Amino acid sequence: MDKVLSHIEKHHDRHLEELKEFLRIPSISTDRERKGDVARCAEWVAAQMRGIGLEHVELHPTSGHPIVYGEWLGAKGKPTLLIYGHYDVQPVDPLNLWQSGPFEPTIRDGQIYARGSADDKGQVLIHLKAVEAHLKATGSLPVNVKFLIEGEEEVGSEDLDPFIERHRDLLRADAAVVSDTSMFDRDLPTITYGLRGLVYCQIDLEGPNTDLHSGSFGGAVANPAAVLSRLLTQMKDERGKVTIPGFYDDVVPLSDEERRAFAALPFDEERYKRELGLQALAGEEGYSTLERVWARPTFEVNGLLSGFTGEGAKTVLPGRAMAKVSMRLVANQDPDKIAALFEKQARALCPSTVSLKVTRMHGGKPSLVPVQHPAVQAAARGLQKGFGRPPVYIREGGSIPVVATFSETLRIPTVLVGFGLPDENAHAPNERFDLSNFRRGIVSIAHMYDEVSRVRL
Amino acid sequence: MDKVLSHIEKHHDRHLEELKEFLRIPSISTDRERKGDVARCAEWVAAQMRGIGLEHVELHPTSGHPIVYGEWLGAKGKPTLLIYGHYDVQPVDPLNLWQSGPFEPTIRDGQIYARGSADDKGQVLIHLKAVEAHLKATGSLPVNVKFLIEGEEEVGSEDLDPFIERHRDLLRADAAVVSDTSMFDRDLPTITYGLRGLVYCQIDLEGPNTDLHSGSFGGAVANPAAVLSRLLTQMKDERGKVTIPGFYDDVVPLSDEERRAFAALPFDEERYKRELGLQALAGEEGYSTLERVWARPTFEVNGLLSGFTGEGAKTVLPGRAMAKVSMRLVANQDPDKIAALFEKQARALCPSTVSLKVTRMHGGKPSLVPVQHPAVQAAARGLQKGFGRPPVYIREGGSIPVVATFSETLRIPTVLVGFGLPDENAHAPNERFDLSNFRRGIVSIAHMYDEVSRVRL
Repeated sequence: MDKVLSHIEKHHDRHLEELKEFLRIPSISTDRERKGDVARCAEWVAAQMRGIGLEHVELHPTSGHPIVYGEWLGAKGKPTLLIYGHYDVQPVDPLNLWQSGPFEPTIRDGQIYARGSADDKGQVLIHLKAVEAHLKATGSLPVNVKFLIEGEEEVGSEDLDPFIERHRDLLRADAAVVSDTSMFDRDLPTITYGLRGLVYCQIDLEGPNTDLHSGSFGGAVANPAAVLSRLLTQMKDERGKVTIPGFYDDVVPLSDEERRAFAALPFDEERYKRELGLQALAGEEGYSTLERVWARPTFEVNGLLSGFTGEGAKTVLPGRAMAKVSMRLVANQDPDKIAALFEKQARALCPSTVSLKVTRMHGGKPSLVPVQHPAVQAAARGLQKGFGRPPVYIREGGSIPVVATFSETLRIPTVLVGFGLPDENAHAPNERFDLSNFRRGIVSIAHMYDEVSRVRL
Repeated sequence: MDKVLSHIEKHHDRHLEELKEFLRIPSISTDRERKGDVARCAEWVAAQMRGIGLEHVELHPTSGHPIVYGEWLGAKGKPTLLIYGHYDVQPVDPLNLWQSGPFEPTIRDGQIYARGSADDKGQVLIHLKAVEAHLKATGSLPVNVKFLIEGEEEVGSEDLDPFIERHRDLLRADAAVVSDTSMFDRDLPTITYGLRGLVYCQIDLEGPNTDLHSGSFGGAVANPAAVLSRLLTQMKDERGKVTIPGFYDDVVPLSDEERRAFAALPFDEERYKRELGLQALAGEEGYSTLERVWARPTFEVNGLLSGFTGEGAKTVLPGRAMAKVSMRLVANQDPDKIAALFEKQARALCPSTVSLKVTRMHGGKPSLVPVQHPAVQAAARGLQKGFGRPPVYIREGGSIPVVATFSETLRIPTVLVGFGLPDENAHAPNERFDLSNFRRGIVSIAHMYDEVSRVRL
């Protein structure tokens, strides 16, 4: 590892120049006019892969933007890691809020400012540079690696699942590694070991066959907007518990250890409230804010529409009412089972005065990788060496769909080890990436590859 | 009265021709291109008034369409009636559903088909022809009359209230008569003695300062759409009672006599449900459908809007949620008082996790004219003579704003005596007016004038 580390040290300035090169390519996947730039960016990634010594590097065209694949499989008998990232970036509007051009990477105060710097180009390059260090310094890698770098993450990764489905053999690995999450705080190396899943449904209630005059009919006809409000309200009790029978049956409870670990994190609730502009937080009784967001399932109303919503007043008794609702799930809740329980309860609560339609939109399984998993522990030792302190273990309230795909299609766990910071403005103007984390990231990942080579997966 | 009645008999064919003339003018007040036609229609009404012997006939220009005024004040010491109606009509779309042209009045099966026939030209002409009969047959009227015929009823009567306000002296009268309502059923002469009032408000809830990702924040932050649903739900209990403290305090209870009278009406609840496409009706426990619609106050949701309402799914925790709500009021509820009670209760129910804004949009007082009022009883005797049976007394769930204006600005009660039928398609294609009701209407109103002259108002 000494040779590897001194390679990283020696070539750091060049690595930084390469990061700038990568960031100069405006690979905005949602912008049709940037299609050529996105393609150029895929080529750049492929050239990088070839340059550092990966093999079988290939651009796989999709209906949208290409997927870049490269591998190095010379570590006989050693585990294989599937490293996922994305080279596409978010749009840059509003442009006038940027202090320097979004595609003119600029270093200020130890941060590199550019669209995609944290999300996710900087993090992709960390892995590529860690591989480079091993291959260039020692002629080999301690583990086998397969890189899967897509160009459609910011537009929903539509082509990714079908690609993984069609290339199960190509992508066969022992664990996946994703560096597209954040550290909990500056100087706190972080492993994310749990993600929430999702069930998303639309509820449509239909009452009278047309909107009615609320004077002529109000009082004698059930109002679908009011029935909907009641139905949604009945899904949760006053203590913030979801009342759908069976909803919590499969929830893996938080261990005392997890609760202690969450409580020990430097979480500033006052600042959290202030940033959201809120007087008070709210949630399930008996749980802290981090527990509520990371480790408890929810029932949320995502949208409401009924009747007259324009300027002024219209005395209409609406003929119909619609709600979008979603439930965030935690291990081991199953989206299909929860969707069925929800629909059953909605039917049970719905009076005969309206008709109910429930449409399931989409969903995803929650994931929870035990922190004792050898791949997680190898990553932890890598982070310890790169940052000089052991990582914190956190969960994340959202879903990263590819993690569920890796689990379901490839049957492998995912280690989420991210080097962004929560305030680095991914998706906002003045996105930036801390250069000390770029450097410590490369060192940590180089160590992690080494650590993984010592365990059985 | 014999001379008067024989005049009506003798001139019926001419009256019918005049009705056709009136109906041929496409006085669609909402259609800018018809502005000339609407003006021509006002001129036609004025010419009619002059022709039958009214005095001081005048077109009062407004910011929209003219108000036509005419009077006959020769009945010294007798009551003065203010007769209100409108000469403008609804649009005619969809035109292809009309069996004959909307402005080509056509008689089929004793009905005259044309836009405006029932609403309200036919009913306006009933009064004018009753006046004509008196003036032409006897040289005088038994009562004093003032006609106020506007051209903006179908577009909100925006200029009417200011006009009444500015012409209190001109319009001074002992009672108003409005013939713009319906009979409860064929051959059932009807007096409407109660209208509901209205309070209409918009509720805006604001939670976090922006829409949030429902994964990253769901569970820890109160969801304005869910808070709104709960707040709306809490405004009514499971038995359909409004739970706002003090809401029912000023409600004049239904008398046993009224309840018996409503119950005796030929109301077909199965047909009512069928026409609305409903499996079941719903409303306040302990009241019949007609009681609920006519004589009980309500709390209705008129509109809901929050978060994502487009196609598909978006995992947003909405930053805000909006509802339009209204309360129908019955005598003697006061809109200002009820609006204040509502807002107070909304504030009491609203948690500190969101901020609440209540905007009062508009409102109107309920009205209830005692059926024993001498003007009502005079109208009843007129109907008895015109139809050969006493009228039924009903209420109406909606509001007729001009009735509140007459009450508040002119301090006079309004007798609502209408000759339309509920199935005559006012506002829909194939609007029609029953010619036997046109004839019986003229006779009834001619008698009513005579009856009013015998009472003190």
